[in-house]
Amino acid sequence: MNAPKIITSLTNDRVKAIRALEMRKVRKETGLFVAEGASLLITARDNGFVPETLVYQSGTAESGITRGLVTHALNAGAEVLEVSEAVLGKLASKDNPQTVLGVFRQRFAEPPPAPKVNAGETWVALEEIRDPGNLGTIVRTADATGCAGVILVGTTCDPYSLDAVRATMGSIFAVPIVKMERSAFISLQRAWAGDVIGTHLTAREDFRSLYREPQLIVMGGEGPGLSSEAAASCTKLVKIPMAGKLDSLNLAVATGLMLYQIRGPQLKL
Amino acid sequence: MNAPKIITSLTNDRVKAIRALEMRKVRKETGLFVAEGASLLITARDNGFVPETLVYQSGTAESGITRGLVTHALNAGAEVLEVSEAVLGKLASKDNPQTVLGVFRQRFAEPPPAPKVNAGETWVALEEIRDPGNLGTIVRTADATGCAGVILVGTTCDPYSLDAVRATMGSIFAVPIVKMERSAFISLQRAWAGDVIGTHLTAREDFRSLYREPQLIVMGGEGPGLSSEAAASCTKLVKIPMAGKLDSLNLAVATGLMLYQIRGPQLKL
Repeated sequence: MNAPKIITSLTNDRVKAIRALEMRKVRKETGLFVAEGASLLITARDNGFVPETLVYQSGTAESGITRGLVTHALNAGAEVLEVSEAVLGKLASKDNPQTVLGVFRQRFAEPPPAPKVNAGETWVALEEIRDPGNLGTIVRTADATGCAGVILVGTTCDPYSLDAVRATMGSIFAVPIVKMERSAFISLQRAWAGDVIGTHLTAREDFRSLYREPQLIVMGGEGPGLSSEAAASCTKLVKIPMAGKLDSLNLAVATGLMLYQIRGPQLKL
Repeated sequence: MNAPKIITSLTNDRVKAIRALEMRKVRKETGLFVAEGASLLITARDNGFVPETLVYQSGTAESGITRGLVTHALNAGAEVLEVSEAVLGKLASKDNPQTVLGVFRQRFAEPPPAPKVNAGETWVALEEIRDPGNLGTIVRTADATGCAGVILVGTTCDPYSLDAVRATMGSIFAVPIVKMERSAFISLQRAWAGDVIGTHLTAREDFRSLYREPQLIVMGGEGPGLSSEAAASCTKLVKIPMAGKLDSLNLAVATGLMLYQIRGPQLKL
């Protein structure tokens, strides 16, 4: 069995390489990402993810959860680094310090087979979403409602950024994430067997409606909303009614309402 | 009529005083807060708020929205500062730079009169909420669903921080915000005329239920959820059903679902 490697130098190359994963460019080049904290790492393990590298703070793996994570990683052949508090302080985010983190390989999934998607499935597409907190929260809600997957359309924020991963509360390891160019996505919309449901400011139909299975929900970005191309390829455009002078809800809240409208009838306590 | 005062020095006392409002301590001492961007400032004006100080970037108030805001502020006797781009860069947040901002006086509202709250009202209480984005998003959803107000219970994040204000999308100027100690809030719960509805992990009742008016929704903080004291003083404890292995939703999403469950029947397109 492997053994943990001990690192105390802030300028160690492995430390620098992991730290560089803060940058989207480096995440893209390496195909790796970081998940912080025992809770996320347990969810990763439960979903069959093995870290490429597990990093923990000296003295925290004598027993308990971190020890279990270290043993799992070593058994799976992963690199395990035991680091000083100072080194971990360099690696971990400042606002929510954790004593253990994992480096994982990103897994993007294939697009669903539009005409042949199972009737029971619901997919959520997010066009040009910008806010990692919203993205992560939507992945979490997609998990909570048993969605088949989340499709990122066009230029979006990175689902593997630290903020997005944290907002998923671990669901990043459970929900398939697909990336598509807009043109390919429009083709997917057109070939979709059930309803393709867009939320749109000018829609005249209330979102509290029934939709043909399988459902594809299409949500526009935080500022501009749904593009006219994506809207034109929906089978239904709906709107969430609002009081007051507001013309929109937060994107993660609106997506949550759509998901509970559609998936809710199947969810029981 | 007043005229704008021109400031180009980064070390100007007014500039330093406004910048200091980034700190919660200073916001508390002065009772002031900052709202950035024309959209928020228009909502403020529409809700009868006059800024104590309006700050805009030189050259942006020749016409259009900013000119209207400047005229409104000068007519109302507010201080108006015309600043260089460099000064505004010091004052405005880095991630979402705006060319105009206002300094406003905080307005906390009185608690609702528990036994005598109008039957048509719904109030939302947030116990020990920690995340300014969640808080702001909930104020926005409370506005969108016509809630009477939001009650902050115990030690919470600041509704007047820049992040919270921004997440409200202007609803901070439309929705009454109340602050209460937990003991006073428990008394409010007990005296409440209608249902006091808490969401709780161990609840056995589905949230898709009917509730007696007026409704008081009580949501716990992001980590710990509802305190046992607050839970014990609810008339109903409910749960939002979830698929998968998750045991909770994002707080703003969960609150949005509760609000549309309760207020939704009155909302029409």
